[in-house]
Amino acid sequence: MRSQQDSAAGLRHLITLEGLTRDSLSSLLDTAERYRRLPGQPAYEGRELAGVTVANLFFEPSTRTRASFDLASRRLGAHVLNLDLHSSSRAKGESMLDTIYTLEAMNTDVFVIRDSEAGMPEFLIDHVAPHVSVISAGEAHVSHPTQGLLDVLTIRTHKRRFSGLKVAIVGDIKHSRVARSTATALATLGTTDLRLVAPEALLPDEAEFKGAQRFTRIEEGIAGADVIVMLRIQKERMAQAASLDDAAYFREFGLTPQRLKLATGSVLVMHPGPMNRGVEIASEVADGPRSVIREQVNNGVAVRMAVLAAIAATLTRHRRPL
Amino acid sequence: MRSQQDSAAGLRHLITLEGLTRDSLSSLLDTAERYRRLPGQPAYEGRELAGVTVANLFFEPSTRTRASFDLASRRLGAHVLNLDLHSSSRAKGESMLDTIYTLEAMNTDVFVIRDSEAGMPEFLIDHVAPHVSVISAGEAHVSHPTQGLLDVLTIRTHKRRFSGLKVAIVGDIKHSRVARSTATALATLGTTDLRLVAPEALLPDEAEFKGAQRFTRIEEGIAGADVIVMLRIQKERMAQAASLDDAAYFREFGLTPQRLKLATGSVLVMHPGPMNRGVEIASEVADGPRSVIREQVNNGVAVRMAVLAAIAATLTRHRRPL
Amino acid sequence: MRSQQDSAAGLRHLITLEGLTRDSLSSLLDTAERYRRLPGQPAYEGRELAGVTVANLFFEPSTRTRASFDLASRRLGAHVLNLDLHSSSRAKGESMLDTIYTLEAMNTDVFVIRDSEAGMPEFLIDHVAPHVSVISAGEAHVSHPTQGLLDVLTIRTHKRRFSGLKVAIVGDIKHSRVARSTATALATLGTTDLRLVAPEALLPDEAEFKGAQRFTRIEEGIAGADVIVMLRIQKERMAQAASLDDAAYFREFGLTPQRLKLATGSVLVMHPGPMNRGVEIASEVADGPRSVIREQVNNGVAVRMAVLAAIAATLTRHRRPL
Repeated sequence: MRSQQDSAAGLRHLITLEGLTRDSLSSLLDTAERYRRLPGQPAYEGRELAGVTVANLFFEPSTRTRASFDLASRRLGAHVLNLDLHSSSRAKGESMLDTIYTLEAMNTDVFVIRDSEAGMPEFLIDHVAPHVSVISAGEAHVSHPTQGLLDVLTIRTHKRRFSGLKVAIVGDIKHSRVARSTATALATLGTTDLRLVAPEALLPDEAEFKGAQRFTRIEEGIAGADVIVMLRIQKERMAQAASLDDAAYFREFGLTPQRLKLATGSVLVMHPGPMNRGVEIASEVADGPRSVIREQVNNGVAVRMAVLAAIAATLTRHRRPL
Repeated sequence: MRSQQDSAAGLRHLITLEGLTRDSLSSLLDTAERYRRLPGQPAYEGRELAGVTVANLFFEPSTRTRASFDLASRRLGAHVLNLDLHSSSRAKGESMLDTIYTLEAMNTDVFVIRDSEAGMPEFLIDHVAPHVSVISAGEAHVSHPTQGLLDVLTIRTHKRRFSGLKVAIVGDIKHSRVARSTATALATLGTTDLRLVAPEALLPDEAEFKGAQRFTRIEEGIAGADVIVMLRIQKERMAQAASLDDAAYFREFGLTPQRLKLATGSVLVMHPGPMNRGVEIASEVADGPRSVIREQVNNGVAVRMAVLAAIAATLTRHRRPL
Repeated sequence: MRSQQDSAAGLRHLITLEGLTRDSLSSLLDTAERYRRLPGQPAYEGRELAGVTVANLFFEPSTRTRASFDLASRRLGAHVLNLDLHSSSRAKGESMLDTIYTLEAMNTDVFVIRDSEAGMPEFLIDHVAPHVSVISAGEAHVSHPTQGLLDVLTIRTHKRRFSGLKVAIVGDIKHSRVARSTATALATLGTTDLRLVAPEALLPDEAEFKGAQRFTRIEEGIAGADVIVMLRIQKERMAQAASLDDAAYFREFGLTPQRLKLATGSVLVMHPGPMNRGVEIASEVADGPRSVIREQVNNGVAVRMAVLAAIAATLTRHRRPL
């Protein structure tokens, strides 16, 4: 894979958080904080992406993430193309490339791609022109870098530090791109105490999440936690892999007010959304005082603006002269 | 239901015209006139909604009304999110709320909602944040406030007064949100002579449309009318409720050039669109000299701009400081 | 059909290239060159369409052409409405007219229409208001004027002249709007040596493409060619009309590196896209040094900007005063 950074260490692509330094991550979070506006404040409006065209290529439907990238792009002044692409139109990587080359020829500068299969983001960064960038908005179970960034921004806002934090991730970790990207970001920023909590069948391979402790009982996994990241379960997979229906999953792994008492008093409850209330999380917890779930969404727009602005600054150096 | 106005009497939401004073309505119409541009004139372009994000949540497809709100928002400088929402995604009010809270967390300021079922607009205004507004773009048979406003703006433009006007509404009034909102606006503005014309089965309950006369023969209902509002019929409902097919409906209730002569010479013919030509209205009438149907569409953009601008002005007072 | 130009010879509509003079075409190409930015250069951003509303009415799906018009419009400052129209909604021309009149009443200034059936663009220019324009983005087998313009702009950029050029068009010419519009533009600009290459069943009627030579063997048709325009084949039509499957078509008519040697050394290989690689064109040729296929896409945005800007300038003269 080509580097995500150019020779001057400017961010060129973002398809994984692996390989990004602590300074790189911190710098993106600092920028995101400048762009962040709380609900009720007027949204940041800037011209950092003036003249830039962003194409959203979503092979997997996602109202939330698409809206978040769309607003982040437009509030910085970009033109956004939302393309209706169906799996069929990329039957072969070759036809996908023709689509990419066509959009490049229309002076598209940034591709935001979301795909339920693995491999397309890396394939694209190996093929796009020197003045074009690729951002992953979620790739199979592999990576969801902006989700990882928004998670650590949310944690940083409340905890101010990453070393010494106990973070538990609960749910179908084996298939979760959120878990992988968030764990990568936490490790880079200095968190060493990571706990993975899932039914045996949904814990990841031992080779992954190095150094993390593994639990099959939620009570043990979240004991003393400073942060709990609940994952959205996919009901079909749960039934198939772990023989659990909704009620049984909630009984064994659902985050209830009772269980939450096992964590620290200042615990943060996080969830990437959309939630299955009453399945992986009780509504009282989702809407309770320890929940920062809506802050995550708010931070999501901010980190996407930060990533887009960083990439646009890099692209400027790679432009052809007029 | 919470009030549609804030404590300073600024318009905060618009989901019904009930409860709005004559002054409030007149003020909105005055503003709409300032925004109105005739076809062929360059559209008004302003910054009243600069930095504002409007999300269109259309559960019921509507090319026309969505385009009207979309243009109204963008011509005032807003960012617009058009969300693909399907009935399934609001199976429960709770999941709808999560969608709303997610969009609020992305600094969405205004929700425009259209729904074939009743109740969602009121549910939303009971739940949105203090700095967020809800506008109904059509709610079941209950309410369609911007249609009511554009209807009275069209009448005011031509008649200059509402008292003393004879207004006939013809068609499936029982199930019509247009009839309800237009009747409410007319009553508030001083029209007392309202005539409801429909097959017996499609007249509303006696408890509704207080003071209106009811007719089952169109010739009687439109005699001497200053304004005739034709409603779009739904063919299935007509067949079921009144045992009328298209041809029979047109024969009994269709607005023909002959019947139009029963009204005053300066009668206005209105229709919310889209029309079923040859069913509820003859093409010669729809396109004839008494028709103001296209003016209604033109006024539709203007009143939506007025509503959006009034709401944006109110929201400014409820913003959190930066 | 009404003229595409107004009484002052300003471009008012563009639904065919027939009847446009050499000067008119050259002037549009000159403007397109000013708007053109190479990939990697920042896209042109202007205000030529500020306050203008463009409605894209695509009855035939087309990601590429729609994106090209969308970006061309927005980079010149227009508001763009992308309307979801299905064949059903224009069952009758009358209902189509109501849609058009509705959008006109919302101050839509330009309609861009693409349709797999013939006749709608001409029908529209006979009905739109004096201050409204119609641009065809592809009409059945009849016309695709902006494709014709982008093709001749691409040729002009490389060849600097049209007289004396040998141009071969290869594929299903009988059903191709691209072939018709490109041939018209070439003839107007002075190219007299046009060669049509296709299976017998897919050559056009003798009454069309006056003066062109016809070939059923590609080797003969492209011998000595300065420009080769490959057309996208529709597999079903090929099987039905010419009894050729993909492999047989490629064997008989595919543009391979070997066959390309029959053309001049400076030949341009063109294709309107999307390509069927390995059917009408070999990948080595599509991506090879003689291919200008991506330049065509780049020029496509530029010519659409030029057409939109010319039309907007004309419309200004037909505006109603404020």
